[in-house]
Order: sequence, then structure tokens, then C-alpha cells
Amino acid sequence: MARHGDAKVRVAVVGATGVTGQQFLDALVNHPLLQVTNLAASARSAGKRYIDAIRQPSGQVSWYADSPLDQRIGEIEVEEADAFDAGGVDLVFSCVDATPARELEPAYARLAPVISTASAFRMESDVPILIPGVNMDHVVLLQHQRERGRKGFIAPNPNCTAVGLAITLAPLHRKFGVKRVHMVSMQAVSGAGRSPGVIGLDILDNIVPFIPKEEEKASAETRKILGTVVGETIRPAEFPVSCTCTRVPVLEGHTEAVHVELDRDADEGAIIDAWRSFGGEFLARGYPTAPSAMIHVHDDPFRPQVRLDRDLGGGMTTAVGRLRRDTTLDNGWKYLLVSHNTKMGAAKGCILLAEHLLAEGLISAAKR
Amino acid sequence: MARHGDAKVRVAVVGATGVTGQQFLDALVNHPLLQVTNLAASARSAGKRYIDAIRQPSGQVSWYADSPLDQRIGEIEVEEADAFDAGGVDLVFSCVDATPARELEPAYARLAPVISTASAFRMESDVPILIPGVNMDHVVLLQHQRERGRKGFIAPNPNCTAVGLAITLAPLHRKFGVKRVHMVSMQAVSGAGRSPGVIGLDILDNIVPFIPKEEEKASAETRKILGTVVGETIRPAEFPVSCTCTRVPVLEGHTEAVHVELDRDADEGAIIDAWRSFGGEFLARGYPTAPSAMIHVHDDPFRPQVRLDRDLGGGMTTAVGRLRRDTTLDNGWKYLLVSHNTKMGAAKGCILLAEHLLAEGLISAAKR
Amino acid sequence: MARHGDAKVRVAVVGATGVTGQQFLDALVNHPLLQVTNLAASARSAGKRYIDAIRQPSGQVSWYADSPLDQRIGEIEVEEADAFDAGGVDLVFSCVDATPARELEPAYARLAPVISTASAFRMESDVPILIPGVNMDHVVLLQHQRERGRKGFIAPNPNCTAVGLAITLAPLHRKFGVKRVHMVSMQAVSGAGRSPGVIGLDILDNIVPFIPKEEEKASAETRKILGTVVGETIRPAEFPVSCTCTRVPVLEGHTEAVHVELDRDADEGAIIDAWRSFGGEFLARGYPTAPSAMIHVHDDPFRPQVRLDRDLGGGMTTAVGRLRRDTTLDNGWKYLLVSHNTKMGAAKGCILLAEHLLAEGLISAAKR
Amino acid sequence: MARHGDAKVRVAVVGATGVTGQQFLDALVNHPLLQVTNLAASARSAGKRYIDAIRQPSGQVSWYADSPLDQRIGEIEVEEADAFDAGGVDLVFSCVDATPARELEPAYARLAPVISTASAFRMESDVPILIPGVNMDHVVLLQHQRERGRKGFIAPNPNCTAVGLAITLAPLHRKFGVKRVHMVSMQAVSGAGRSPGVIGLDILDNIVPFIPKEEEKASAETRKILGTVVGETIRPAEFPVSCTCTRVPVLEGHTEAVHVELDRDADEGAIIDAWRSFGGEFLARGYPTAPSAMIHVHDDPFRPQVRLDRDLGGGMTTAVGRLRRDTTLDNGWKYLLVSHNTKMGAAKGCILLAEHLLAEGLISAAKR
Repeated sequence: MARHGDAKVRVAVVGATGVTGQQFLDALVNHPLLQVTNLAASARSAGKRYIDAIRQPSGQVSWYADSPLDQRIGEIEVEEADAFDAGGVDLVFSCVDATPARELEPAYARLAPVISTASAFRMESDVPILIPGVNMDHVVLLQHQRERGRKGFIAPNPNCTAVGLAITLAPLHRKFGVKRVHMVSMQAVSGAGRSPGVIGLDILDNIVPFIPKEEEKASAETRKILGTVVGETIRPAEFPVSCTCTRVPVLEGHTEAVHVELDRDADEGAIIDAWRSFGGEFLARGYPTAPSAMIHVHDDPFRPQVRLDRDLGGGMTTAVGRLRRDTTLDNGWKYLLVSHNTKMGAAKGCILLAEHLLAEGLISAAKR
Repeated sequence: MARHGDAKVRVAVVGATGVTGQQFLDALVNHPLLQVTNLAASARSAGKRYIDAIRQPSGQVSWYADSPLDQRIGEIEVEEADAFDAGGVDLVFSCVDATPARELEPAYARLAPVISTASAFRMESDVPILIPGVNMDHVVLLQHQRERGRKGFIAPNPNCTAVGLAITLAPLHRKFGVKRVHMVSMQAVSGAGRSPGVIGLDILDNIVPFIPKEEEKASAETRKILGTVVGETIRPAEFPVSCTCTRVPVLEGHTEAVHVELDRDADEGAIIDAWRSFGGEFLARGYPTAPSAMIHVHDDPFRPQVRLDRDLGGGMTTAVGRLRRDTTLDNGWKYLLVSHNTKMGAAKGCILLAEHLLAEGLISAAKR
Repeated sequence: MARHGDAKVRVAVVGATGVTGQQFLDALVNHPLLQVTNLAASARSAGKRYIDAIRQPSGQVSWYADSPLDQRIGEIEVEEADAFDAGGVDLVFSCVDATPARELEPAYARLAPVISTASAFRMESDVPILIPGVNMDHVVLLQHQRERGRKGFIAPNPNCTAVGLAITLAPLHRKFGVKRVHMVSMQAVSGAGRSPGVIGLDILDNIVPFIPKEEEKASAETRKILGTVVGETIRPAEFPVSCTCTRVPVLEGHTEAVHVELDRDADEGAIIDAWRSFGGEFLARGYPTAPSAMIHVHDDPFRPQVRLDRDLGGGMTTAVGRLRRDTTLDNGWKYLLVSHNTKMGAAKGCILLAEHLLAEGLISAAKR
Repeated sequence: MARHGDAKVRVAVVGATGVTGQQFLDALVNHPLLQVTNLAASARSAGKRYIDAIRQPSGQVSWYADSPLDQRIGEIEVEEADAFDAGGVDLVFSCVDATPARELEPAYARLAPVISTASAFRMESDVPILIPGVNMDHVVLLQHQRERGRKGFIAPNPNCTAVGLAITLAPLHRKFGVKRVHMVSMQAVSGAGRSPGVIGLDILDNIVPFIPKEEEKASAETRKILGTVVGETIRPAEFPVSCTCTRVPVLEGHTEAVHVELDRDADEGAIIDAWRSFGGEFLARGYPTAPSAMIHVHDDPFRPQVRLDRDLGGGMTTAVGRLRRDTTLDNGWKYLLVSHNTKMGAAKGCILLAEHLLAEGLISAAKR
């Protein structure tokens, strides 16, 4: 990790004016290792100071993060994403939509590492879907991308719904084998962003039973995250995952009801132990954005509750509870989880990944 | 059915001051066949006019139904449930809690038919759990209860979570056989009633992942409802049902995500046909409280939505949608349903049952 | 009023694809006097069947009214608003935005009566702002518009926030004189429509303290509605109205806390009498969309509650309660009101107005 | 203030098991000057460890504060409030209901200072209602209480609705004179506590227009807080305050729309200056629980928003915005404010007061 005195890693945030971009900016203020030097967005924002780029016609500044906009960030001139020269930075956080990502991210990756919240490349064979602390062995594929001529690489994070699911299944899969998974999600409105997002008229006193493409992503990505590196690609985990994804009137944090069939017999204590000890080695590295536990296990049957648990570990810990047998399956178990979709599930998850890749030497502050 | 000119069935509502009691009273105003003649409640209310019994110390009248309190009902003097003589009425609707129900309902049933929303006797061997239009063959057990010396019988409705599940599984079970069911519910706050119910501090921007005893009830009752009459008892359906029941910030109507494994291959069209034609014979009888369809199937993948669909058919129709294969199971299918927990799932469901039992001669207006 | 056998009034709805347009279409199905024959909208929808015009790329039909889309309406071909020939209909309901309304409505009004929910012409000197039952003497200005060469006229309804305020102030102003008004509104999200409307992320567990231009409209329009016809214009009522308008997490219905200073002494009984008897003559005409009372006065201090009271009289009755003295003012009184912003405050209010204008001969079914 | 090495003040929390009691306990963990040594509650809890006293029959621990229950606190044995000997502590925080407070607080005050959230004694002539930073000159009445034979005193905080109102009016009253105030509140459900509190069925998609006694308290207390010490009592400020208090579906934080008439002409800049500089001297004392500003003034007209602003300054800063003239009044102004009802408006407000009284010598750590 960077010693005091080392230069910080120069970071660009592309898609900086959106909600996820703002969460990156918010989480990177005072970061000990990473420093935002460049911002990029669509042509409409290009050439403006950041604070002006996010100002609405009414004069209102559209800034939606936990802390006020950092003054230094507000003064940075926004560049046009299409024309942005990634060669000038050490790392690009990309949070543009999937369609522009298909063009932009490979161009950036030729010159610099790209960590992305876009889904565009997640299912490419040489692209891992990385969750810090879960599948760090997949990082080797980033090296393979480099060997094919990129100076950088593309490292996408997963769909937010897959994050909590993969984290809680990972230790079960390792110890007992996972044979089959059913998951029903109750997802927060923040997952839909702000343009237009989920409107109040649709979600107050209501549940929307469909989120286009979400179930397919949650299923395929979970299997890839828990898969095995084989040569220069990843063989997905073989267990099937069936999802139903819904939207509920909750601001932040996804709740997921999981029914899982294990390969081998397990008992409650062993499962809880597996969860509680999960990621210990990774956490011991002491990354700035890491929580003190990957998974928090509740005994109280009324937990996890999304409003009370989403911010555990700064939104980086997945809360689980209500572990009990599912007697309709052989070695069947049921539990619920709460995962913060816009922290561990988005910007802060990417930042923690960057901290790890920096420690591993896949990202580094260029000598200038 | 009663012809014009026939005397109406004299009905008592026991537990009349509670939320469910009020829904009975509201739904029975101007009923063509049933007339509320007696009200009973706890000692605290006994001897008061109904309107005074539901008046709070502040002067506010606690009346929570769709229409204003009927003036005639408001004037009825409330009797004490413990001392109530069921011999004076033709039918008792009981909506007391399970504990008092254990004492009260058998006493009433010695003298009159009892239709109950309490869970007290649902799992007794000679007691059916009846859903109108679903398992009317189970009515024969009421006759058996009578043969054992009661003038009446006890006929409980199911737990509100089992209602939509059993209704939508019934035609699948009949046509294709059900092998296994996973269900995750997102339940409305009205299901918890008002004393104290679910408080706003616990449910705004939140999900509560546990409802004590609900999962067990939903599972066992669904299997009993879809079971087979064998002699003087019911052999439950053999398929296992695994549930996760949660509470969400929705006022009325339960949403359930169902994953079901069938015994035999089915295709989408056949399932939809089975749903759409379900209960046709029952509905053809033209009961006053019956909807025009037992099940409404949505094509729009964004439906069913609980706020938009809970009142279909006057809250008596179950809405389903998002039917799609669950490839993790042999002959696996997934769908979502919305069912009105306090209409088909409570008072109005009991009233529709009474209409059927009246037509079948199990309830009748005494000659006086 | 039209007798049986009379031809119905031919109605065009312009802006038919929006939320308000849909409310018009929904409320006009089976209307005894009015029949929708033409639909118009922006160029994007022109030439499509209505049901296709409101279909989203996902296939979902965007229809947000209480009842399902009427099949006949769904088949009508949408015309382009810019090119629509109002000469072919007897009445135009216009619910386009204020900017296009400035061009479209005068063009339509040359050929046919226009009743509009747009604010574009509300403050013009020869344009009345009509609330059925409140200021029917202002109808004379429509006649004046005609005398200036139009075959039709422009008759806008008020801003939804002014509706309940003007209705409840009208009888007070008439009997006791109003000297000063303070009003704080808590407005439903439906008032902001759907594109984009108020997003869930902004309104769950929150209050937005500002609705641009709303306070000015509520104040100026209330004074104009309660003003006096002087020659060919309206002299606004002289009392000042000061408003604070906020948005709250409520789906439908505006709640307003009103503090009013009267010119003359009044007592509680006299105020309640004034409210209860208000509009009796108008209601006696028996228009199809009229409620049985303009104002419903609650004794229960916990009422009016917006969810419980917004649908009184089919959403056409204003509920008031908590009348009590405001001792900080001479002859000061305080009360709260609930008014349905998208029924009496929008489409259904316009339809009731049309029924009155039809009875008064300002609208008529052309002989064809 | 206490120097390092000084003994901490021994604190009892009476009413410790309730929501407010828990907020005291949560806010006092690691407090540099105050240490909780005793807990008291009703007979039902007496004799149990605190963690057992708040455990429900289901096994669930009812702990509702921001941080988990401190382990040391959980082990303290709860005493019975009726029998509690206040002589053993240096300070009592009382958060029992008004009725028991009438008996308990005078008994405690004979032996120790009592800071209370109960309304029981707020309107007594020798009892000030203290808001830290607002009316510290009223502290002299506590001294007078002592001179009448108490070792301690009773110092109640205000009703939570009065807190933000008094804070924002105080600098206006001082500089320009306040002549008349109209206030409409939109209050959070947390203000009603948990037993039973506001139930979800009553507040989802709704507004409750009445909170018994709240308007009278907000009015009378605001005038007393802004009053003048005259001899051994307080002469209330003379301006009248008229309130309408409502409950809205918001978890925490009260929003208030204020219309105020000033004695003397003011301009916008002068008012904003008065607010921004308010309490500077008090804040300069550097109390541990004090925020960096008493009042935060927003320029953005879409602020203050309760969810975004309630936690400003740790919930101790009042946010104001939308300052504009009210032309219906001479020297009239309007604004909105957001105040955290359970932080500055309850436990943390009392703790900040204790810090001040400690610095002033009215509370001290006994030599033991």
C-alpha cells in the first residue's frame, strides 16, 4: 500500500454528473491513496465547471451525496467523455450507461485501468466481475487483458443485486457446495437512479414486480463471480440461480430472501461460522474503505431490516439473518440479507477494489 | 338461494369492535341474504351501543371501513362474547383472537354455524379450511361435525397469506400436479391490525423480515386446503411449501413471489388457461359477493402491482402475472400474485363462503 | 339538460396521452351527455391508435386511470394537436402544457368552446377561472369572448391548490367577508404528473418545501375566483392571500391548513352552516358529475385525513375540519381542508363545468 | 468545564426503557463529562438488567438508537422510579410521561438537578423552559428554585415543535421585534414514540391533521421561551402565536412553515445575518454536544428538506430556507424550518443544556 509521502493515484471519474458519479466523488474526498484529478461527462456538461454542470435551470444544484460537494471538485472543468485522454490519469472510474460504455471503456483501457459500474463487458470471457474479498483470484484475468496489448484493463463491478447474493453464497459454496439457489429481491428506489428513476406515483403504497434484465443479470453474474479461473477465462459456478426481482418503497438498500440447496450437509453453527469468518484475510489487509466484517449475522429474527442495517460497516457489510432449514430441499436453507446497493453495490465497492488492485500492483501512481 | 320474500339469515358478528369485525359489518350492509342482528365483543364493550363501544376517550369514533358506519348497526347493543347465546341467530361470524376463540367457538358451534377468521381450529382433523371456489368438496366435514352432536360447525377461513397462494396453485395442482413450492411474501400492514399493528416508525422506508408463525401457517394451511377428503378428515397435499414472509410499507394487499415445480410438463398457454377458467362453475352460481373471475392473468410484465390490483373484483379476485419458466427446477415455473388480505383474505371471503353454505343448505334462516 | 334521445355533445380531448388526458377519458366513459369523438396529442403520437400511442417501448401500456382503458377509445386514431380542426367537435377539453396552450387554445376557441386545465390564459382580463358551484356568475365573460368573434371561448379551471381554498372561502366571503388568508399546503405527488413527476428518491420520508410558481397561482387565482364581474372583466377579491406550498409523500389529494381573518364577527355554528349549505342551488340541478355536497364538515378533530377523505363525493366534495378560532387575528379562524387535486381539481371539475355550460346553452350538440 | 482528570458527573436516566430514554443512553456513551451510573423505570422493569428490561417476550431486544446498546449500560440493574434515591447522583435526566413526572420530579429535585423532557412543570411560574443558546438568562430561575429549599431544580426542555420555532424567532425578536406568528407544522412519526406511536395504517399515504394539545404547547412555550425574566418568574413574550400541527409520513424531523409579522422593518440580508450569527457566543464555549451553527440558512429554494437537513450539526442545527416577504402583513416574512425532534428537540438538547449548567456551576460532580 502507498506509504506516506507517496504520490496519490490520479483518478478520473467518467459519468461524473450522474448519481453514481457523485457517490464516487463523495467517497473519494480525503481518500488517502486516490485523488480525483479529472472529470468527464457528456457533451452537454463539457467545458463547464463541475458545480455548473450539475446546476439545474432553476439554479438548484443537483448534488445527492451524503456530504456537501467538495469545493475543489466543484471547480474542476468537466471534459467530454468521448474525447477524454485516459493517458493522463492512473485510473478511470467509469459510471456511464451500458451503451456508451461499449465504446468508451475499451478506448480508455488501452491507456489506463478502468473500474466500471456499467454492465457492458461483464459477460465477456476475459473480463472478471470482481467483488472485493470474494473472488480476488479472478484478478489474474486483468493481467491477461494487459497481455493482449492494453496498458490498462476493464474491471466491472457486479449488478447491485448480485453483490449481497454472491457475498453470502461464497463461503457456503466453498465449504458445503451450492447446488441450487432461489432468490427474491425487494430493491430500493435508489437503484433506478434519478433520470427518471422510479417516480413517487408508482412506488408509494406499492410494489413493482419487474425490473427489466435484472433477474438475468443477478443470476448470470452470481454464477460467474463464484466461478473458477480456467486458463484465461472463468468457468461459471454450475449451480442454477433463479431470481424474482421487485422494487419496493425503500430509499436505499436491497433486501433479498434466499433459499439455497447445499451439496453437503451443514449445520446452523457451521454456516454462521462460515459467514462470520468470511473474508478475514482480505480484511486484515486494512484497506481504507474496507469494513470490519464482510458479513454480519443477526440472531434477532426481526433482522436484518433494511433501514437499520444498510449502513453497517459504512454500507460495506452485508447483513444476514433468519437462517433456518428449508425442508423442501435436501440440505436446504433459507435466509434474508440486506446489502447497500449504492455503497458496497456501487461506488464504494469499486473504490475498495481499486485499493486492492493498487496493493497488488495492478494500479499504480505514475511517476511524473 | 333465497328468493325474494324469504327471511334473511340472522347473523351475529363476534369480535365486532375490531378491524376485521368492522369489515364484516361494512360488507354486510344491504346484503340481500344476510342481516346483522347481534354484535358481541369483550366485557369492556358489553352493554354499550355499538357506536359508543368504538368511541375513544378523545371522542373519536374508531371506524376503519370503506363506507361510513351504518346507522342501524351503530344502535345495536353490544353483548358480551362470553355470555352470548348463539341459539338466537342462524350464523355467527367470529373474528376474535385465537386464544378466546378456543373457548368461544365450540360453545357457539353447539348451537349455530360459525365461520371464523381465527386460526384456533384450522389444523383440527375434522375442520376444513375453506376458500370459496377452491375446495368446496371439503364442506362435507362440516356435516361430519354436525353428526357428532353440534347443531352448527366451525368453518375457519385460511391465513390471509395462504389465500392467494392456494387459489393460484389449485388449478395447477389439479391439472399438472404440484411437486414443490417456494413462496416469498411482501405483506401489507393492514394484516397486523391496529392494536398495536405495525407502527410507522418500524415500516416507513423499511422491510420487516419476520412475521411470527406466518410461514408455518401459510405452508401447512395451503397443503390442507389443497388436500383430499379421506373419510372424515383431510389428507394434506403432499408437496412441500417453503415460505419467507415479510412486512412491507404497503397499506393493503399481499404480494407473493412464487416458484413452483410441477409434476408434469406444462406450457405457458395451458397454465394461463387453467388460471383463467378456474372456478367458473362456482362463479356461475352468481353469489352476491363473488367476483367475475377468481384469477386475473396479466400480460403486462409490470403487473400485478399491489396498489393497482388489490381491488380487482371488489378485492375478491387474485391477480397474477410474470409467468415464466424457472429453469432451476424440472417443470419449474415462477409467477407473482396479488391478493387482498382483508377482503378475499378475511371478511368478504367468509361472507362468500356463507353464501355458498346457504345455497348448499348448511346454513339456513330459521323459521321464527 | 339533454333529454334521452338527444345527440351527445361531441368532445375532443387534446393532450390525451398525458395523465390528465387519461383522467378525462376515464371520467367520460359512459357519460350521459358527452361523447369523446376525437383525440389529439403531440406529433409523436399522431397517426397512431390511442392504445399504441400510450404504449412504451417495453410494450407496457401507460394507462393510469381508475378503470381499464375503454376499448372504443383505444381504437381512436390520435390527431396532431397543431393541426387539429376544432370545427368538427362541440367541445374541446385541453390538457396540454401552458406553453403549447398559448398557441393552440385560441385557435381552437375560434371554432369551439375550450375548457382547459392549462394555466396559460387564467389571468387574462376576459377569461374567468371557473369552479362549478362557486362563481357561475363569471360565466358571462365567456359570452363576452364570443362577442369578440370567437365561436367558442377559453374557460380554464384553476390551479388544483386554489380549488379547495376558493370553495371553502367562498361562503365565508359571501356571509362574513374575508379580510386576510394564510394557507400552507401539503400537496400530493400526483399533482406533478409523470414526466418526470416527483421521483421516489426525493419524496419518500421527505417533504419538498417548494413548488415553483404554485404559491403565486394559488394566491392570485383564489382572489380572481372570488372576485366580482365588473363590465367585461373581473375585479379580484381585495383580501390578500399568502401561501406556502409543499410536496408531501401522499399519492392523491391536497391538504391545506388555512388561517383566515373575517371582516365581521361569526360564530362556529354560522360558519359550519355556511359551509354545509354552500352550493345547494347548484347541486339541485342534478348534473351527472356533481357530488351530493360541495363541502363536507367533519366534527371529529382527527379529520379531514387525505387518504380517507379525498374520494368523498367521487372526489368532488371538499372536506373540512378542525374549525377553531385563531385568536391572533380579529375575527380569526383556522381550519384544514382536503381536496382531490386530480378529480375536482382537474378533469372531473372540468367535466362538471361542461355539464353546467351545456345546461346554460354555452355548449351545445351541433345538429349534424 | 471539567478538566481532564476531574470526576465525571454521575447521571441517572429515569424512564430509561422508553424511546427517549434510549436516546439519552445512546448520546451519553463516551460523553467526556457525564457518566450514566443509574437507570430507573417502572416497577415492571425494576430489578432486571437493562438489556433484559427491554427484551420483548419474543426475545427481541427493543433498542432503537443509532448505535448498538453499550455493553456496560446493558448490565446496569434498573431501579424503580418511585423508589429511586436521587441523592446518589449529580444529575437526573427524566423522560417519563407527564403524569408520573408530576410526582417524581419534585421528589428528585429536592436532592439533585433534574433535566426533563416531560411537560408537567413547563408552565409553572418558577420553572424556565430552556433551549441551549436561546434563553440562558432564564437559568436564574433554577437558582431561585434552589433558594426555596431544593438541592436541585426542575429544568424541562420544550415541546419538540416549539424548539425550531423559538430558535428561529429568537434573533428576529431580539433585532426587529416579533408582532405575530402563524405556524403550520408537518411532524415526524418519531415524535409520537412507540407505545403505541403512530401506526402504519394511519400514516402511510396520509396526513393526520390533529395532535392533541400540541398547538397549545407550541404556542405557550414559544412565548415563554422568548419571554423576559421579571423577578422570580418569566413574563412571556407578548406576540401571539397561532399553530396548526399535523403528522406526516416522515420518520424523523419536524418541518414548520412560519409566517411572521415583525415590529420593525427588516430586509432579507439583515434577517439572514441575524440567523447566521445567532448563538455565536454560546457556541464559542465549545460544549461537546454543540453544533457549529445554531441555524443554517439555505439559499436553494428547494431546501430545507427534512430528510436531507434533519441531521445537520448532529441534529442540533435548525435549517431554514425560503425566506420571502409575506405581503399580507406589515413587515411580514415567511420561511420554512427543519428541526430534529428527537435530537435538538429531546435528548441531545437536554444534554447540551446539562453541559452549559455544568459550566455555569449549577450542576457539579459531587466529591465522593
